[in-house]
Amino acid sequence: MSVQGYNPRTGKPYGEPVEATSDTEVDQLCEAAARSFRVWSGWLDADRATVLDLVADRLDDESVLLIDTADAETALGIPRLTTELKRTTNQLRLFADVLREGSYVEAMLDSPSPDIIPPRPDLRRVLRPLGVVAVYSASNFPFALSTVGSDTASALAAGCAVVVKAHSAHPNTTRETGRVVSAALAEGGAPDGLFAVIYGTQSGVRLVQHPHVKAAGFTGSIGGGRALYDLANSRPDPIPFYGELGSVNPTVILPDAAADRPEEIAKGFAQSVTMGVGQFCTNPGLVFAPPSIVVALAGAVKQATGGAMLNERMCDSYRSTVDAMSNSDLVELVATGAAPDEAWVGAPNLFRTSLDVFESNLEKLTEENFGPAGLVVTYDDPAAVLALIPRLPGTLTGTVHASDSEHELASRTAVELQKIAGRLIYNGWPTGIALAWAMQHGGPWPATTNTSHTSIGVPGIYRWLAPVTYQTWPDALLPPELQDANPLGITRRRDGVLDKH
Amino acid sequence: MSVQGYNPRTGKPYGEPVEATSDTEVDQLCEAAARSFRVWSGWLDADRATVLDLVADRLDDESVLLIDTADAETALGIPRLTTELKRTTNQLRLFADVLREGSYVEAMLDSPSPDIIPPRPDLRRVLRPLGVVAVYSASNFPFALSTVGSDTASALAAGCAVVVKAHSAHPNTTRETGRVVSAALAEGGAPDGLFAVIYGTQSGVRLVQHPHVKAAGFTGSIGGGRALYDLANSRPDPIPFYGELGSVNPTVILPDAAADRPEEIAKGFAQSVTMGVGQFCTNPGLVFAPPSIVVALAGAVKQATGGAMLNERMCDSYRSTVDAMSNSDLVELVATGAAPDEAWVGAPNLFRTSLDVFESNLEKLTEENFGPAGLVVTYDDPAAVLALIPRLPGTLTGTVHASDSEHELASRTAVELQKIAGRLIYNGWPTGIALAWAMQHGGPWPATTNTSHTSIGVPGIYRWLAPVTYQTWPDALLPPELQDANPLGITRRRDGVLDKH
Repeated sequence: MSVQGYNPRTGKPYGEPVEATSDTEVDQLCEAAARSFRVWSGWLDADRATVLDLVADRLDDESVLLIDTADAETALGIPRLTTELKRTTNQLRLFADVLREGSYVEAMLDSPSPDIIPPRPDLRRVLRPLGVVAVYSASNFPFALSTVGSDTASALAAGCAVVVKAHSAHPNTTRETGRVVSAALAEGGAPDGLFAVIYGTQSGVRLVQHPHVKAAGFTGSIGGGRALYDLANSRPDPIPFYGELGSVNPTVILPDAAADRPEEIAKGFAQSVTMGVGQFCTNPGLVFAPPSIVVALAGAVKQATGGAMLNERMCDSYRSTVDAMSNSDLVELVATGAAPDEAWVGAPNLFRTSLDVFESNLEKLTEENFGPAGLVVTYDDPAAVLALIPRLPGTLTGTVHASDSEHELASRTAVELQKIAGRLIYNGWPTGIALAWAMQHGGPWPATTNTSHTSIGVPGIYRWLAPVTYQTWPDALLPPELQDANPLGITRRRDGVLDKH
Repeated sequence: MSVQGYNPRTGKPYGEPVEATSDTEVDQLCEAAARSFRVWSGWLDADRATVLDLVADRLDDESVLLIDTADAETALGIPRLTTELKRTTNQLRLFADVLREGSYVEAMLDSPSPDIIPPRPDLRRVLRPLGVVAVYSASNFPFALSTVGSDTASALAAGCAVVVKAHSAHPNTTRETGRVVSAALAEGGAPDGLFAVIYGTQSGVRLVQHPHVKAAGFTGSIGGGRALYDLANSRPDPIPFYGELGSVNPTVILPDAAADRPEEIAKGFAQSVTMGVGQFCTNPGLVFAPPSIVVALAGAVKQATGGAMLNERMCDSYRSTVDAMSNSDLVELVATGAAPDEAWVGAPNLFRTSLDVFESNLEKLTEENFGPAGLVVTYDDPAAVLALIPRLPGTLTGTVHASDSEHELASRTAVELQKIAGRLIYNGWPTGIALAWAMQHGGPWPATTNTSHTSIGVPGIYRWLAPVTYQTWPDALLPPELQDANPLGITRRRDGVLDKH
C-alpha cells in the first residue's frame, strides 16, 4: 500500500508514492514518542520556545521548495501558499512567545485557611502536558492545518509529543515539511521521536487507538471525524478527540446594509465564498438576504473564477452536489462563474431559495457543500430569520452585515447567532483567521466535537494540558511556577486574584 | 415504578416512595429548562450571584430537616452531614463570589494588526454558558455532590439550567433539598424551570440523550459512568460528559517517614481509609510501604470502627470483595476493625501483599473496592515503587509521606505520581477537599472521563462554558465584559497581557 500525490490541475500523479505506515511502525513511533515526551515535558518553557522558533526559521529557509511542492499537489496557488506557510511559521513563533510569557500554565495558589468549612490546606495548581498527541492533517491547509499546523504547534508548545497522520491529498508536501521539522528539532536538541508522520488510512485508525496516545486533534469532514471520534471514545480508556468538522457559516445581510452598499457586500461575498476554491471550513455558504441584493450577489459570483480542487473525490462530490441542486425544485441556480480549463476544476455557483422553502427543508439545505458554492435565502422580515437561526446546525462562524441604523437589530442577530456559532463577524467575512489569544475556531456540533475548545488561536493549547494540584508540599519541591517567590515572574491567581504575585 | 429510600442502619424502608419520572415528564422538564436558560443566561453575573447566596441561606435555614433526613437515609452521621451541608452552601457562596469578581469569563481582547501575516482584525473573546446541563447525583455525598452540589452550583453560576438525576440511595434527601432550592430560586426571581429533579434509572438514560441537554456531569461508578458516557457520545450530536468515576488513590510511605513516625502515619491512614465508611472517591485504598510499618497500620485499622454503608448493594459488594480477598492467595488479611450492630454494615479491613505479587497481578489488585478497606503493598527498594507507579490506573490523588531527609526521593515520587493523578498530597491524606481555585478533583481515565477538567473547585465552572469571539463589532454592541472601557472592571487578557485593562 502507498499514498500517491496528484496534480489537481492535470489529474496526473505527482511525485513518487509514499509508503503507507504499517501497524508495527505506528506502534514503534508511538512508543518512541512516549519516551520522548518524558524528556520534552521536563524542558523549561523558554527552551521549548527556542526550538519552536528554530523550526519556524528552518521552514522559512526552505519555503521555495515547500511552496512549490504544495502548489503542485494542491493547486492552491503560490500567493496563497506563501501566505499560508508564513502563517504557519508565525504560529510557531506565537506559541514560542506564549511560552516565554509563561502565564498560560494558569498557576493558581490558595493559602491555608483552617477555620473555614471545609478547611483549606495549601493548594497550588499548574497545567501539565498530557502525553503523545495524534494530529490528523487537513486537506485544505497543507501547511497551517497539517504537518506542523496549529494542532502540532500547540501540542509541541504544551510539552507533548506528536504523531501526525498525513492527509492523502498532499503526501509530498507532508514528507518535505516533516523532513524540515525533524531536522530542525534534531538541530535544536529535542529528544528523538518527539515528532513523526504516518501515512495511509489504516495508520490513522491504529493511531487513535494506541495506548500511548492521550488526545487527538482533527480537521476534516463530519464522516471521517465522526469515525475517529467514535474510535477514540470506544477505547478501554477513552481519550479526548478534538475534531473540527463541518460548518455552514451563515451570513445575515440586514435590510439597510443590503440597500446601502449592495455592490460592496456582493463583492466581498464572492471573494470570500470562492477563496481557495471554496475549500475553507469558514466558507460563507449560506446567506440570508433581502431579495433586492440577489442581483448584485449573482453578478459578483458570475465574475468570480474557480479553480482546480484539492483532489478528485472532492471535485466529484462538489460537482454532483451542484448538479443535484441545479435539478432540484427547492432552489434556483442564479449564477455560475468561470473556471480554468484544468482537470479537477470547480466553478463558483450561487443558488437561491425563499425562507419558507428553506425552513421546510432545513436538514437537506444545510448540508455543507465543500466548494465555491453559496445559497442565498431571501427573506422579507428579519424577525423570521432571527427565529430560524437557533435551528441551524452548529457552525464555526456567523456573520452580520448591518448599517449604522441597524445596530439594535444587529445586536439581536448576534444574540441568536451566538447560540450556534463560535465566532461572530460584523461587516466582514469569516474566511481568514488570526493568530491571537482572542481567536475562536470552534462551535457546537457538527462544527466541532467539543465547543468549549478551539483548534486555532492560543487557547488551542489547553486541549493538550491538564491540571495537577500540589497539596502542602515544601516550597523547594514545587515546580518553579508554583514556588512562593514566583521565580518565573508570571501572572498567577493567588487567593483568587490574578497578578504577578 | 418508584424509588424507595431505606435506612441503612435497619435495612427498613424510609419515607414514602418517590415516583419515577416518565419520559414525557423528562422531556417537559428539559424543554422548560431550555426556555429558562434563555433568560438566566442573560442575567448579569451579580444578579445570579445574589440568587446563589439566597439558595445557600435557605438551605442553611432548613439544615435540621435536611441533615436529619440525610442521616436517616445514608447513615453518614449528624456531624459529617452537618459539615457536608455547610460545605455545600459555602460552595454556592464561593461561586457567587467568583461571579462578582468576574474574571472567570476569561475576556481576551486583541487589537487590529493589519500588517502581520495573517492580518489580525479586532477580536474579543468571552465565555458563555452552554445550555441545559444534566447532573447525575452521587451516592456518597448526598449534599455536596448531589442535588445542589458542585456540578449544579457551578452550572447555575455559569448561567446554565440544570436537570438533576437523583441517586436512588437518598430520594427523600433529594426531594427535600430540591424543594428548598426550587423555592429559593423562585424567591430570588429566577425563571421557572431553571432547576428540576428527576427520579429513576430510565429518566437518567433519557436525560443524557435529550436534544436540549448540552453537557453532563456525573459522579459514581465506572460501570454506570461508562454507560452514560457512551450514550452521550453516541448521540447524533455528541455532548461532553464529565464523569468522575473510580480511583485507587495510591499512597507512598517513604522509608525514613515510616521509620520516624509510624504511629502518626498509621493513625492518619486508618482515619482516612475509614472516613465515611470508606465511601470516598479519594479513599487511600492502596499504600506502598516498608514492611516495618505494617504492624502499626494494622494496629490502627484494628482500632477503627466501620458503620452502615449507603445501600444494600454497596454493602454486599464490599463484603463479597473482602471475602474474596480473604480467601485469595495473593493477599493476606492483617487487620479487621470493629463494626456496630447495624444492618448494612461494613467493617474496616487491611490486607497486605508484596510488591512482586502486586506487580504480577496489577489489574486484579488495582480494582477499586468501595468501602473501608486498604491494601498495603510492602517494598524493599523505593526505586521499584517509582518504576511501578506509571503503570497504575489513572487516579484522583497520589500521596507521599516523607521525612525531611527524603526530599529528593519525594520529588522523584511526585514526578511519577503526576503521570497518573490530578492532586498530589505531601504528608497528608487525600480525603477531604477544599473549595478553591487551586483545587483539582480529576485525573486520567478511569478517575475521570476528561483529565483536563475538574468536578470540584472553581475551575469546574469551565465544563459549562464555551468561548465566543466578536470580530470587528462596534463597541456599544459588545457585551460589557468586552467593551473598551472595561465597565465591569475585570481582569482581562489584552494583547496577550493579563491586567485590569
